[in-house]
Order: sequence, then C-alpha cells, then structure tokens
Amino acid sequence: MTSQTSWVPVDKNGDFSIHNLPFGIFSEGSSLPRAASRIGDFVIDLKALAGDEQAKQQLTSLRDLEGVFGQTSLNAFAERGRAVHRAVRADLQRILSQSTDLPAILKDNESLKQKVLIPVEKVKMHLPMQIGDYTDFYAGYHHAYKVGVLFRGPDNALQPNYTHLPVGYHGRSSSIVVSGTPIRRPRGQILPNPAATPKEPTTVPCRRLDFELELGCFICKPNEMGESIDINNAEEYIFGFVLLNDWSARDIQAWEYVPLGPFNGKNFGSTISPWVVVADALEPFRTEPLANDTPVQDYLKETQKKSVFDIQLEVGLTTADGDHVDLTKTSGRNLLWSFPQMITHHTVGGCPLRAGDLLGSGTISGTEPRERGSLLEMTEGGKVDVQLEKGGVRRFIQDGDSLNMRGYCEKDGVRIGFGDCEGKILPAHGA
Amino acid sequence: MTSQTSWVPVDKNGDFSIHNLPFGIFSEGSSLPRAASRIGDFVIDLKALAGDEQAKQQLTSLRDLEGVFGQTSLNAFAERGRAVHRAVRADLQRILSQSTDLPAILKDNESLKQKVLIPVEKVKMHLPMQIGDYTDFYAGYHHAYKVGVLFRGPDNALQPNYTHLPVGYHGRSSSIVVSGTPIRRPRGQILPNPAATPKEPTTVPCRRLDFELELGCFICKPNEMGESIDINNAEEYIFGFVLLNDWSARDIQAWEYVPLGPFNGKNFGSTISPWVVVADALEPFRTEPLANDTPVQDYLKETQKKSVFDIQLEVGLTTADGDHVDLTKTSGRNLLWSFPQMITHHTVGGCPLRAGDLLGSGTISGTEPRERGSLLEMTEGGKVDVQLEKGGVRRFIQDGDSLNMRGYCEKDGVRIGFGDCEGKILPAHGA
Repeated sequence: MTSQTSWVPVDKNGDFSIHNLPFGIFSEGSSLPRAASRIGDFVIDLKALAGDEQAKQQLTSLRDLEGVFGQTSLNAFAERGRAVHRAVRADLQRILSQSTDLPAILKDNESLKQKVLIPVEKVKMHLPMQIGDYTDFYAGYHHAYKVGVLFRGPDNALQPNYTHLPVGYHGRSSSIVVSGTPIRRPRGQILPNPAATPKEPTTVPCRRLDFELELGCFICKPNEMGESIDINNAEEYIFGFVLLNDWSARDIQAWEYVPLGPFNGKNFGSTISPWVVVADALEPFRTEPLANDTPVQDYLKETQKKSVFDIQLEVGLTTADGDHVDLTKTSGRNLLWSFPQMITHHTVGGCPLRAGDLLGSGTISGTEPRERGSLLEMTEGGKVDVQLEKGGVRRFIQDGDSLNMRGYCEKDGVRIGFGDCEGKILPAHGA
Repeated sequence: MTSQTSWVPVDKNGDFSIHNLPFGIFSEGSSLPRAASRIGDFVIDLKALAGDEQAKQQLTSLRDLEGVFGQTSLNAFAERGRAVHRAVRADLQRILSQSTDLPAILKDNESLKQKVLIPVEKVKMHLPMQIGDYTDFYAGYHHAYKVGVLFRGPDNALQPNYTHLPVGYHGRSSSIVVSGTPIRRPRGQILPNPAATPKEPTTVPCRRLDFELELGCFICKPNEMGESIDINNAEEYIFGFVLLNDWSARDIQAWEYVPLGPFNGKNFGSTISPWVVVADALEPFRTEPLANDTPVQDYLKETQKKSVFDIQLEVGLTTADGDHVDLTKTSGRNLLWSFPQMITHHTVGGCPLRAGDLLGSGTISGTEPRERGSLLEMTEGGKVDVQLEKGGVRRFIQDGDSLNMRGYCEKDGVRIGFGDCEGKILPAHGA
C-alpha cells in the first residue's frame, strides 16, 4: 500500500482521503437525493460526473451509471457488484490524484468542478440504502461474555450455542435512521422492582437508555430463496460498512425479551453513519478475528483467515450543557465471527438476502472498562458511575445527551474513516 | 347483515362472495402484475375497470385509481386509507349485485366484461404487498401455553410477561412468499442429542419441520417514528388480513434461539394467502378475544371489546402419494391479544410502522389435540403419531407433503373466505 495524495485538500487526520472514496446519498437544497462519493470536505456528485460527456468518454466505468447515480438510494449501484464498485473507485482515484493523468476531466475543469464538488456544509445526507431486512448479530465476544456475567454469572455467561454459530436475530428496518436524526426516548413496559413477585409492570419512559457500538454491513447481491451462500463466496455479497448505534432500552428489553428476543427495547431507532465504506477500501486493514477454541462446523470454516478489519472505534458522549466524555476506544477485530461467517450462517437454511439488507455485528467491546461498547457493561449493569470531564456523571443516557461514534483505520501513512454516527436523545412524550 | 347475490355465479360454499371482495395482485400471461379483486371464479382487473370511461364517470371511487391499480403491489392503494377501500368495495358491490342499478357498466357490457372478469385459472397470483417489515406475535394463548408446558412444565408454561403485553419479535420479510410457492426444507445446526453435555451440534437437513397456523394483518398507514398509535385509532391502520403459515424448523430453532429468539428456524419461508380480506368485510364476524384475568396497562385497554374475528380456520396435509389428513379446525377468536393491541404495543415506544408491513398473530390453537395450530402441539413434541386417511402417519412434515390452510366466516347466510394458503416441501439440498 502506497500513500497517495489528492489535489483536493484532505486533513491528515481526516476520514475521507483518496484511499477511502465511500458512497452515500445526499441532497442539496430542495434537490432529489442522489449518489455521491466524498473527498476531504467535498461530496462528489456522481450523477453530475457520470453525466459529463468528457468524463464518460475517458472513464469507462461511469458510462452507463448516470441513471443509477440519480436514484434516491444506492441499491441499484450496489447490485452492479463489486467489480463495478472497484472500477468506479479506481476511476475516481485516477482523476482525484495529485498526479492524475487526466487533469482535463476535473482537476483543471473549473466548470465541472463547480458542479461536481460540493462543500459538505451545503448538503444533507440521507440513508444510503433502502433497507429491506435488518439482522443484528451478537458476534462481539467480550460484550456477550460480559453481559452474560452480569445476567447469569461467570459459569453460564455464554449460552452453549455461542461458539458454534453466529447468534443473530431479525431487527426492525423501518427504525434505522441516518446520523444526525434525533431519537425520541421510548416509553414502554418495565418492572420497577424486577425482583418482586408477582411481576408488576408499569408503563413509563425508559430509565436505562443505552447505546451499542456496532459495525453495519450492507449486502449488494441477492441469493435465491432456498440457496445458501458458500463461505468462500460470501465477500462477493458485501457492498461495504457503516458505523451502527443500536440504541437499546435495557429496562424495556429485560421485561419483554423472553422467550422470543428483543422487540420494543430495540425498535425505537438505530443510527448509522451515512457513508458506505466499501470492502475494497478496508482491504489493507484485514486482520484475524478473536480465536475460537470450539471446532466450527464445516460450512463456517474460512479459507481467508484475516476476515475482520482492524478499525479503531471510539464513542463520545456530550451533554446538553456541554459536558463531555470519551467513553470508549476499541477495535473492529474484537469479533468472534466475521461478516462472511454471518452471511453464510444467515443463508445456510436458504434465507434470501437482498441488496440493501443490513447486518449488524453486535456490540463490539474490548476487555477493559473503557473499551466497552455499551454503558451496561461499563457501569456494571448501571451500578458504577462514568465520570464526565466537567464533573457530570452518567450510568445511562439522559435527555439532551448526544452520542457520537467514530471509526477509522490507519497504517503506513494511509488513513480512512467512517465520519460521524451521531444521535441526540429527545425527552419521551408525556415525560 | 342481509345476504346479497351477484350476477356472477358464486358457489354457496365459495370464499369469494359479493360480501368479500378482497384485494390482490395478479398477472396474466406475460403482463405486469397489477391489482385485482375477486368474485367467484373470476378476478376483477381493477386497472381495466378504473380505466373505463363509463365506469369512471359513474363510480366516483375509481376516478383517480387507474395508476394506483396498475402498480405491482397494493401498497399505494392501501395507503389511500380505509375510507377509500370502503368506497371501492361499495362500488364493486353495486355493479356486481344481482339487482345492480348500473347494469350498463359491467353486467350488460360484454366487451368490458371480457376485459375485466378473468377466469382464475388464467392468472397467476403474486404477493399482494411489498412488505417492509414483518413482525410475528405470540398472541395465541392456547399455543403459547401448550408449547410452554412441553418445554417448561405446567407451572412455568407462560413467561410472567405473557398476559401483560403481546409478546412479539421481528421476522424476516424477504422470506415471505405467496401461496403455491414451494418451500425448500432448510439445512442447519441441530443437536442430535439435546440432553448430552457438552452440546455437540451437527449440520443437517431439518428433521422436525412444522407449520404454524396464523392470521396475518397488513398495515395501510404509517405512524411517524417516535409517535405511538392510540388503541382507539389502531383499526385505522389495518388494511386487511391473510392466512399465514409460519413454517418452523423446530430442531434448528431449539438450538439457536437463546438468548435472542428464533432466527434460521423461521427465515427459510413463510407462506401467505394471496387475497387481502379487508377489515370491513370481517366486521359482521367480530367477537371478543379470550378473557385475560390480568389487568392490562392503560394503553392496551380496548373500548371496542369485540376486537377479534370468528374466522373458522382449517389445515390439511396431503402427501406426495395422495394420502391426506384434515389436521386442524379452530377459530380466529383463540387470541389473548387483538391486532389493535398488537399495533398499539408495537408502537408504544415509537417504532414506525409503514404501509405494507405484516403482523402475524402467532400460532392459533384451540384446546383439543385436533384444534392445534402446529404439529409440535398435536404430537406432544413429536412423541405421538398423527394418523392419515390411507394409513400414513406423521409427527412432522415430510418431503413432498403439501400443507394447505383455509379460513372462512359464515353467519346469516353470508359467507366469506380467504382462499388457499398452500405450500409443498421440497427435499433439502444435498439430502
């Protein structure tokens, strides 16, 4: 990997270097949402670029994509497949490079630059994909173990199936929103006194509102119903990755979740970052997942051992009155199961995936308190305070708090990142 | 309610009398799928009807619906709201009635009749809605109790939350198919010996394949994220109902489902009947749900006490070599929670519903063995044979078996029904 520079200025700690070139959906003023890439502080209007005669002539990858880039989601582009994503990124890199061999297309073409490069402060980002189904896995081993200890003690922390298969459940696609969308604190049934018998619920605003730090993976290719996806082909089904905050109402979840799993504790909102960082951009940052001592079933055995990415993940909380704390620093390598394994397991019985489906990794935690991907873990189930910089304390999230997640990879002078995955909590109705 | 007749012949035990007039999506030959209603053995091409100048002039409800009926799903029509569904049905009833005051529109108009009334054997039915999210509830009390007894014994059969809230979980919308679509037996991880320690799974074709008899409810109106739906308005969000077979791989489910709920045991296929029987058509068959001795939270208290429908539900199994058994007879009244309660609970925390979302009731069972909505219950967990008519036996579903569900309501000479909800099991790959 050689570090490249662009003629578009990029901060050396910025997320959107020429090595990234993610895809997203933006609008400007009252325009219809359409596809973009991003470099530095500019979005790249891909429809405008693909509609330019000179660009089309020189950059073969763009030739028939103007209509695709004009759509309000990336689904059609994603469905073109990884070879097309790769070719488009390569052509973008070529014209954006400091040493471009085609300066006439964009670098020295003031009128097209005006149309194609739009300052980020002028645009609004939207959900990048029309999400068909959302599946949330539970592949963050340290999270699963810690939560298991809190609920069941160390001897039974993990269920017997945990190391045999990537445990997952179906989530709620309608509740996924893009970074910056406020999240209303949910009301719901909780047990004010969980230990009392008989159980007497009450319906109130959630008192134990939490975040969950996850990676999201977008699918670009459907499998037919009844057909499974081989582990060695699974990466072909991956469009790219986003950060995912799977907001969780712990008290609602605790009461409702037996025997069929989380429901209202999870479906009031999940936030994703707007830019889909494509799998190719993450290639240099491959690493091995956590070791699994359990022999896995044949269909889950990977030939590619470096099947996760060493993405630095950070979470910060900022209160309404400006207090702040950096809550978490961890890495995307803290998974027991890779996304290819999740995809293969998801389809082993023939479940059809579609382009635009979103898979969540499950909460990603390290082993130390401040490497935890949720407050539940960090506060030992709500029993220990987290200190904020200006003297505030938190056990769970309060009204007016903003949570922001960031993720980046850095190696050999190359840095790419995900941008913000932010959401602010509004007070519950009637609270 | 007065029994009416149509000039289109309808068998007296037929599902599609003039009192029904459900909505669905059909295609004929290579035509694009489009909207239809149905009477007797004819589908009613609604786009063709709404495109006819005379019909448009006389039937105000159809005036701006030609484009809506030309779409490949009913979503846009559903979103028009219940007043529009009602007006369209009333206009259809008016022109189809034996004593129609407008015979010139269809009854005596041979050329339009040729275009609009298409024999059912000439058409193919499709999924009626583009389904955003699918949620499956667990509101069939006798099913939940019986399954609980099988798994945990009579003292702990129901979880403490069961009578306080309609337990539900998110399902997989991509795996929902229309009646007649074959279902591939899933492969997956199971425990050959569930009692052994340590747990040693193997990956094989499902050995305990089951059906689940459910009602499905389609949503016609979105709520905004963060806003809940009041129980007294919840019926306005209901487009109509279908039969739903939530095929279940019991052995896969048993191993995978802790702690996050069913996943691959449920996402290999769910079958629905093609005709959406609108809520208005079921009005005469309202009845009270099962009594709940637990005082429910205020937000779940219904003013309309007759909040479920007395739908006669039947399930039959036919083997590849023609043996048959009528497995089940029960009623849609066997629910502890109504669909309005499910809708209200689903949104109490602000989860957004969208037009086209599907809610499943959960398995509907009576109390007697042959009133059970699944083989799991009927066979006491796979321990007791079900006898077929020609000498065959079943504990679970075998390759080549077809399951068909039927549902109808009958009262005061009026009969309406749902049509078939049928699926045949194909052998697993590599089996």
